[in-house]
Amino acid sequence: MNGVRAIFEPQRVVLIGSSKIRERVGMASPQLFKSVVYNMKEFFRGTTYVLDIDQKAGYNRLGKLPEIPELAVILLPPEQSVKQAEKCAKSGVKALVMITGGYKNQQRQKLLKLKEEYSIRILGPNTIMGVINTSNGLNTTFERNVMPKKGSIAVISQSGGVGACLLDWACFYSVGVSKFAFVGDKIDVDDVDLLHYFGNDRKTKVICLYLEGIKKGREFIEEARKIVKKKPILALKGGATQESAKRARSHTASIAGSDIIFDAAFKKAGIIRVENIEELINAAIAFSKQPPMHGDNVVIVSNVGGPAILAADAVARNNLKLATLSEKTKKKIESLYPGVDATNPIDLIADARAERYTKVLELVLGERNVDGVLVINMLKSCFFEPEDAVVIEKVAVKHLNKPVVDVPAGGEDFALVYKVLGNSSIPLYNLPEKAVKALRFLRIYGKILEKH
Amino acid sequence: MNGVRAIFEPQRVVLIGSSKIRERVGMASPQLFKSVVYNMKEFFRGTTYVLDIDQKAGYNRLGKLPEIPELAVILLPPEQSVKQAEKCAKSGVKALVMITGGYKNQQRQKLLKLKEEYSIRILGPNTIMGVINTSNGLNTTFERNVMPKKGSIAVISQSGGVGACLLDWACFYSVGVSKFAFVGDKIDVDDVDLLHYFGNDRKTKVICLYLEGIKKGREFIEEARKIVKKKPILALKGGATQESAKRARSHTASIAGSDIIFDAAFKKAGIIRVENIEELINAAIAFSKQPPMHGDNVVIVSNVGGPAILAADAVARNNLKLATLSEKTKKKIESLYPGVDATNPIDLIADARAERYTKVLELVLGERNVDGVLVINMLKSCFFEPEDAVVIEKVAVKHLNKPVVDVPAGGEDFALVYKVLGNSSIPLYNLPEKAVKALRFLRIYGKILEKH
Repeated sequence: MNGVRAIFEPQRVVLIGSSKIRERVGMASPQLFKSVVYNMKEFFRGTTYVLDIDQKAGYNRLGKLPEIPELAVILLPPEQSVKQAEKCAKSGVKALVMITGGYKNQQRQKLLKLKEEYSIRILGPNTIMGVINTSNGLNTTFERNVMPKKGSIAVISQSGGVGACLLDWACFYSVGVSKFAFVGDKIDVDDVDLLHYFGNDRKTKVICLYLEGIKKGREFIEEARKIVKKKPILALKGGATQESAKRARSHTASIAGSDIIFDAAFKKAGIIRVENIEELINAAIAFSKQPPMHGDNVVIVSNVGGPAILAADAVARNNLKLATLSEKTKKKIESLYPGVDATNPIDLIADARAERYTKVLELVLGERNVDGVLVINMLKSCFFEPEDAVVIEKVAVKHLNKPVVDVPAGGEDFALVYKVLGNSSIPLYNLPEKAVKALRFLRIYGKILEKH
Repeated sequence: MNGVRAIFEPQRVVLIGSSKIRERVGMASPQLFKSVVYNMKEFFRGTTYVLDIDQKAGYNRLGKLPEIPELAVILLPPEQSVKQAEKCAKSGVKALVMITGGYKNQQRQKLLKLKEEYSIRILGPNTIMGVINTSNGLNTTFERNVMPKKGSIAVISQSGGVGACLLDWACFYSVGVSKFAFVGDKIDVDDVDLLHYFGNDRKTKVICLYLEGIKKGREFIEEARKIVKKKPILALKGGATQESAKRARSHTASIAGSDIIFDAAFKKAGIIRVENIEELINAAIAFSKQPPMHGDNVVIVSNVGGPAILAADAVARNNLKLATLSEKTKKKIESLYPGVDATNPIDLIADARAERYTKVLELVLGERNVDGVLVINMLKSCFFEPEDAVVIEKVAVKHLNKPVVDVPAGGEDFALVYKVLGNSSIPLYNLPEKAVKALRFLRIYGKILEKH
């Protein structure tokens, strides 16, 4: 097992901390240590050893463990952390996740020397929340019970805060995650290593990056170019504007560089750039559930007029097109459902239920000129019931080469339909504009695949 | 009491429907009628009469009511509706809310004649959900228990679907609403009448419009110009792109016109245009709680680095500026809290709690060069506790001329802080970019006030 793999797929893990030492800022504290222990015992399906360096008896040094683990998670102030890292390297531990921050340059150098001498791989220091793998339950975060549900979205975050926000969002809104990595100061394991690992990870369908700077630009681009042929990479770049770039430099000590250069690099690499956290999450959900879109033409099928018009506006604003339906299909829909005007966006009228949606979706998905479908089904002011929504997936799975997204617009309406379709292959969005953006990203990836 | 006022502030209301007639599409049905009755009995604090035209005894005609109500809500198929409308007009009812749709031109003409002859005012037909007034509990919607909490946001929607979505959102996310009006086909009462009424309504601080077309353009602009001196008007226009405009024309039978003309009209009127439903809601929440912003300079005060950088990016993208703090203030902050770098965006570090936020917010709000403040307080990966958030309002109310918005970023973090600050004067957003957009709209209104 190589070092990076050991970070995510260890059989045995040792958590090294202290029941006594409390730091003010650096994140070492008995309480946080206890929380990591709690999460690992709660979720990890391998063996967890807890090594408390301030304990009199029991596991208080590595030599006492019955077996040498592949991964050590260290939550101590810098000096003690480095000391423990050295012991780990010497004992044959394959990888370290170093949670705490505040390391001096000299301490970082010592860690790097361990890597050279013992080939031990190091994630961090200053990874704060460390790593999560939903497949084996590995979870080094110090927030109790923060564990996203299993899914196919991998996240690499250069910022503890942005990562924590993404993680909190994923848990609260049941977004399916494969793996999570907070990279911290990346003195060793960096974005390129993680990209490579996630690129080959069969549990991961889409990779999300939050970054403020890149260290090995050329390698990063090369690695990404290889991966995007298999799965999409989404990137949110912090410090995109001049003022904030200054701050980003001091925040993660990375060469922020001009935003235009990043834009060019992302394009070259086939990485899809998003503008904010919500776009990142919404696009990732789309990619984790639906295929790329291989043309610009979208059909909107709705049971309300206004939201369908707003969706149509968003289609144009997002460089997509309203598909023109064949006269044959239009006539068929209109003769089946008198009162329905089958011009795209199609308004099925307020009394549309499962049967009408099924029929119309089948007809439009069968059209050669249709590349993707946006469904809107409101409950309030309509006759549609939450359980009617199951037909959307039933029809969509018969056309696996065309993306279908659904908008149960609003608050409670969204929550009610989410109960029915939340775990299905249909991505759900609470407003039409968000669903159109998701289609736009599926289209962008379609174009990348055609080009690369 | 004039007719439009009678629509929102009646003492006595009669609901006219049938326990027998069921339409397929037009929204007349015993079940929906029952739901309107339920909502009125549940929420309305005046007198509600129920007139069932298919009942043998009891209130089955207007003459039997002990008093003539100011408002009649009619939920019957077109022909019967017109008949009842005539009886109401003749009996001295001041206003009608006509829920159902599907009226022929001739039937509309009959209604207009009633208005001419009897000065009765008519909202609709085809208003679908009708009107809501949270002050007196008036609620003519046919969705049971859909009642937003009291607040100062008024909504005028030309589309039943968009209105229903906004209403569902407001209820689910506890957005405070003053009044809601679904205008429907607006054969009589139109946007100009409603604007005029909401402009003078003391319960309303901000007016939200969803429209697809305007009939009396000049009057609309003149009325709006008067109102925006007192309170902001936000407009979301459906059918903004050519393709969807075509559809909007057939949807609400209004002259959609070129989008550029609308843009010019909105600018002339001092109406703030938003691009989608979420912008509309988020901006409205900001206006209902915070003052306009009178300069471009924003300070970001955060306990995490990455989200603060994303907020700084959004500041630049939204035509705002990162305020430059005086050396004196910076030194003061840095000497009080060693380790904190007081360059804007200010990172208070993960262990910041109520005391540090209080002190720093007081200092930056006291700066002449600061026009607005964006606070970020994450819980996960930080020491901040939800109850610490109360200090944000405590400091903000000492500086009532400068807007303060708060970002407890993420999912659960947002929900936890919402429990503490949800009913306060501080608008909350779950992502930094949304909070910056809110500040942008407060700034736009600041400029409108300076100009008008």
